[in-house]
Amino acid sequence: MAHYSRIDKIVIDLPESVHDRALAFWRDANGGPTGHSQRYPEFHWAQLRGQDIAMLVQRLDDGPAGVHLDIHTDDLDAEVARLEGLGAERVRQVHDWWVMRDPAGLLFCVLRDDPGRLTDANARRWD
Amino acid sequence: MAHYSRIDKIVIDLPESVHDRALAFWRDANGGPTGHSQRYPEFHWAQLRGQDIAMLVQRLDDGPAGVHLDIHTDDLDAEVARLEGLGAERVRQVHDWWVMRDPAGLLFCVLRDDPGRLTDANARRWD
Repeated sequence: MAHYSRIDKIVIDLPESVHDRALAFWRDANGGPTGHSQRYPEFHWAQLRGQDIAMLVQRLDDGPAGVHLDIHTDDLDAEVARLEGLGAERVRQVHDWWVMRDPAGLLFCVLRDDPGRLTDANARRWD
Repeated sequence: MAHYSRIDKIVIDLPESVHDRALAFWRDANGGPTGHSQRYPEFHWAQLRGQDIAMLVQRLDDGPAGVHLDIHTDDLDAEVARLEGLGAERVRQVHDWWVMRDPAGLLFCVLRDDPGRLTDANARRWD
């Protein structure tokens, strides 16, 4: 069965020690509006003007700062399998998404999106 | 004088040793179309379906793989000064763009865009 996917989020990962300062920087660098996730309080988000994709800022307990991408899909199992077929590896499941590793060792996440949000107009269809 | 800026590119940085394999992965993960810069042959690009911003893949001589963001602006001096005022630092000039460092130590680039491309509809205006 066909499914959709796309790069949906740019995520800036910030260890606790620099989180507040760098969150303020990226919020002001990008301009508003911004929000704070109630369900996952380690995440703040910022809209990108005129864009359908968004920026997230994630607070880490520790570890290096970095940037990673989130891929959204309407069929998590099919998309993870497709990406494995292209050379990525599963690293671990976190909440209800998958952390994967690309062939260069870069981590990225694959998340289930709301049914119907991803369409031919804004995502890729994989038959 | 007012100027515009926005996050315009997601850049995946890949050292030579893994470049070809990881470029192929991201090209196929995202789907086409893709292209290769003639002016800067270390860059390949990929459109994101339905998005105005794009993904670049940069070949590095060495160094760790990573992801960084490009900010585009119609007034490079004003935008670099604005970002310095928010806590970023200039690192070095490369070709005609600036590499800067955010308060968490993350590198990003600031580039001059074509006049008129950035507008109230797709970018932030700074008065």
